[in-house]
Formats: sequence, structure tokens, C-alpha cells
Amino acid sequence: MRIFSYQGRRGKGVGVMAGDTRFVALAEAAPDLPGSLKPILELPDGLARARRAADGKPGEHDISEIVFLPPIEEPNAIWALALNFKLHIQETGLTTSDKYPHLFMRHAGSLVGHGQALRCPPFDVSHEHDYEGELAVVIGKGGRHIPVEKALDHVAGYCPFNEGSVREFQRHNRNFGLGKNFEESGSIGPWIMTPDESGDIAKQYVITRLNGVERQKSTLSDMLFTVEQVIHYLSTGYRLRSGDIIAMGTPGALPKPAGEAHDPDRQRGRHKVEGKLSMRPGDRCEVEITGVGVLGNPIAADEPVAYRVG
Amino acid sequence: MRIFSYQGRRGKGVGVMAGDTRFVALAEAAPDLPGSLKPILELPDGLARARRAADGKPGEHDISEIVFLPPIEEPNAIWALALNFKLHIQETGLTTSDKYPHLFMRHAGSLVGHGQALRCPPFDVSHEHDYEGELAVVIGKGGRHIPVEKALDHVAGYCPFNEGSVREFQRHNRNFGLGKNFEESGSIGPWIMTPDESGDIAKQYVITRLNGVERQKSTLSDMLFTVEQVIHYLSTGYRLRSGDIIAMGTPGALPKPAGEAHDPDRQRGRHKVEGKLSMRPGDRCEVEITGVGVLGNPIAADEPVAYRVG
Repeated sequence: MRIFSYQGRRGKGVGVMAGDTRFVALAEAAPDLPGSLKPILELPDGLARARRAADGKPGEHDISEIVFLPPIEEPNAIWALALNFKLHIQETGLTTSDKYPHLFMRHAGSLVGHGQALRCPPFDVSHEHDYEGELAVVIGKGGRHIPVEKALDHVAGYCPFNEGSVREFQRHNRNFGLGKNFEESGSIGPWIMTPDESGDIAKQYVITRLNGVERQKSTLSDMLFTVEQVIHYLSTGYRLRSGDIIAMGTPGALPKPAGEAHDPDRQRGRHKVEGKLSMRPGDRCEVEITGVGVLGNPIAADEPVAYRVG
Repeated sequence: MRIFSYQGRRGKGVGVMAGDTRFVALAEAAPDLPGSLKPILELPDGLARARRAADGKPGEHDISEIVFLPPIEEPNAIWALALNFKLHIQETGLTTSDKYPHLFMRHAGSLVGHGQALRCPPFDVSHEHDYEGELAVVIGKGGRHIPVEKALDHVAGYCPFNEGSVREFQRHNRNFGLGKNFEESGSIGPWIMTPDESGDIAKQYVITRLNGVERQKSTLSDMLFTVEQVIHYLSTGYRLRSGDIIAMGTPGALPKPAGEAHDPDRQRGRHKVEGKLSMRPGDRCEVEITGVGVLGNPIAADEPVAYRVG
């Protein structure tokens, strides 16, 4: 099941995809379910009821009528992993623990949904607004001290995630801080794919395309820490809540495509990686998780640097 | 004005202190104001209306009737600073940028209010659950690209903050991650003191007491980055929202009190600091910001390590 949050003409809702462009609105098919996804995930049978309500229905609505929102609008926490793919660790030359997942946090306002514009800072703020194609895990059933062998019982599903990063700010200090948290600098969506349909997630691929050209492609089996291991570690100290997001880290870059000219303006930064480009307004970036879906966002210029209240 | 959030017998509310133990319930004195603090801060005249409603009233209620909650229950973001006091930088031997504030994030569930128990992990998880006395800034009016000279216009007030940290986890990787985010490992409160009554905050002191013994005491003028500078920096990328919290970093330790025996069990860790002790169940920790208030919490044992759902 592909379940998502949307803004329609008459308000927000939760939908279930039926085919490529049609969807079932749960407000019509299951009016007894809560009107947003986090409280649905908090119900022990929330996803099962959504599935039963949508099952076999043709989909009365078309996705052209709606705007995709981040699947969970206000998660209690958005955790993200640094340096969790072996090739990415090599290409950056950075070191990370091989015993403990490398975690940091993002705030919800740093993310937009599928189809919405990612905001690229003006040059007087940054030249390096970079994509990071990632697998995001959405927590269904919460818990604490979750053993590895129970971890997947706590997963509601998976989404593509673009962990958009502003590199200059990320390098200001040891903790990434603001560099991972610019307003609307990243994205998540379009939907949550439930594990019964994604198959074994470690056998899927993460692929990032900038303006249609593949820039990252890696099997999810290249992760240093698996989904199960990260859930286990995190739950040692943190009580996982329904709707929490864990972005599993980004893979290395693909080699520069044959014949592509070197673009020094888009390849600044400390860690020169041949096939990696920073994003620019007018670009389009896609993150695909095979078996899950494709998250696509245009890149637009962020507001100019000017004092604004509110 | 000292304004706070509480849990009473008949539900949650917002109060304004009147003297040492009495308070005015805004649900009675200003029933037209929202019932929680974040939406009050979102109103341009929210604090002014609360002040007018409580002004000169004796306080019909006593704080013994209520439980203090964190003043803002669900802030959009809780930012915290690492290494922002000169003595603390020296004693840890760590380096930090002298150009850019060193930011990371906490989630709301990592904090309790005044009087509530901080949860100390069992020894099979950690031996180093440490206090960090800090000044917390609460944002009133939101904004982006806020210049230094306008920054204090965006401050609703100040609170004491205990940025309780689990050191072993903080050291697992470059980003502090889980080490700063154990469930109920820190605290904030009891109230927000508005700047008209706190005076120039840089002239105040932060003091931390463990079981009545002073362990940290520093003027807030020892900060590497001021409140104004941090608000300016953060707003380059992040749109500050009403109710956001910024914890301004912890000072160095005071020397070990004369005659105190060395306690190797409470002084583990990589950075040996003579006067610093880890917390243990049964302790009581206080953080005072002079001119603002005193935040006090008993320390209790966290739940044992056992798989729990929900």
C-alpha cells in the first residue's frame, strides 16, 4: 500500500494510491479513521483499516488535483544518519564509528513534500546546496529497547528522502547543526510504501537523478548499519514514536558521465567528488527507492537575504 | 513577568506568578487568550495581554496544587549550543569555531519541567549522565535574517535549562546525536522570565548545584557568542518560530570543594574535570539563572533495559 498526506482544494487528507495517478481518499472510504497519518499510525490496526477501506477500489480522485505533503507533517523527531554507506565514507575521507550509527536531527520545516520546490540559498549565503538521496524509514508502532530481531515490527513503511544539505554551514563546526536544517532544503515522499509491497528493503536501490542524469546509485545492502541495527541503537535512549522518521544516509557519487564538462562552480567544497554537483535554481532532482517510489522536486531560489518578521 | 505552563487537577493551563508561591490562572483572568503558551507567543500582543490580566492580582492559586510543565510543550525546534563558554572550552580541550556558533538539536521528549524527575540511565547503559546548567532563550516573534541589533526584539524571555547529557553516547560519533537526547534526561523551567524583569541578561549568572553544592558558576558575559549573535546566525538558514528554544551552552566547572573526597565512580569520561560529577538516582540538581529563577529536579533511575512497545 502507498499511503500519503495531501492538501486538496477542500483541505488536508490522507490518500491511498490506486494505480499510477488515481487515489482513494480515506475521508470518504474510511471516515471513522483519523484525518491525518500520525494518529492513524498510532492505532494498532490503523494501516490495516486503511488497506481494507481502499482495497479493490478504483480511486475516485486524481493526483493532479492535490499537492503532496510530507507524509508525516509533524513527527516527534526526524533522525538522520551521517556516513552510513561505505563508498560515501571513502569519497569524503571522513571517519565514523563502525560500532555506533552516526545520528543527527532535522526539523520538520527543513523538508517539503513531493513536487514542492526545494529552496536553494542565494550565493551570498551558500554555493553548495547538495542533494543526498536516501531511504527514509517511518516508524509505526513506538517502543524502547527494541531488539534487532523485533525492529522491523516497528516499521510502518519506507519513503524516498532527499537530505538536502548546505555544506558550508555543515562545516562550521563538529555538529552539522544549521547545515542540515535550512528551511525547505530537503524533501520526503511522495508516499509511505508498506513493507509487504516493498519487499526486502536491503535488496532495493537508492538512485538520485539531477536533471535526468543519474548521480547516485547504490544497493541498500551497502549500508554500514541496517534499518534493524539503527532502530535498536536509537531505542536504547530514545522512545520511538509513531510517525518518527529515520533517514538512513546517502551513498557515494557515480563517476562523472562520459563527455560531461567539468563545472567548477558546482563542484566547490572540501571533499572533491568527481561526479557530484551542487544544485541550482531551475534544476530538478529525483530520488528513487526501487520498489518504493520516486520523489521529484524542482529547485527554486530561496528568498533573498532580508530581515523578515514572522 | 514569570509565565509558565502547568498541569492542574482539572487539566493544563498557563499561569503568571504573583509572589513566591501564588499564581494567576490565565484561563480565569484572561479567558479570551489561547490555553497554551506557544499560541500566546504567536499573538503580537499575547504577552502584553497576559501581563495586563495578571497585573496587581494576588494570585488565587498556589503552586503546590500544580505540576510545572516545560514552558513550551511542543516547540518547533530546540536548538542547543556546544562549547560556548570560554572556561568550558579550555577544560574539555575541545576546539570549536570562533566565527560560527556550534549548534545541535534536542527533541522535546528529552526534557521535563521543574520538579519532575530527570531519568538517569542504568549502569549497563551509561555511567555518565551529566548536568549542564544553561540559559535558555525562548523566541517570541518569529523571523528570518534577523540582524544582531534587532535580535532581542524576538526574545519572549529566559529560562534556566539543564542540558542533561549522556556522555558515552555523545562520544560515539562526531555529531552528538543520541547522547543529547535520552528520554527525560534534561529539564527546562520553571517559567519564562520576560526581559523587562530579567535585566541585561549578560550581567546575570548561571549557577548549578548538585545536592546543594555549587558545581558551576559563571557570568553569562563569558559566552563566546551572545544571544543576539546566535539568533542572527541561526536565522540565516532557519525561520525562527514563536516558542522555539535556544539553550546557550554550559560554563566550566568550579574547583572541587575543599575536603571533598575524590569519587572515581562519578568522574569517568575522557575529559577529566576535577570539580565535575556525574548524576546518580537520589541526587537533586538545581540550575539557577540569577534574575530569572531556579530550576530544580530530583534524579531518578530510568527504567531498566527491557523491550517495551508503545
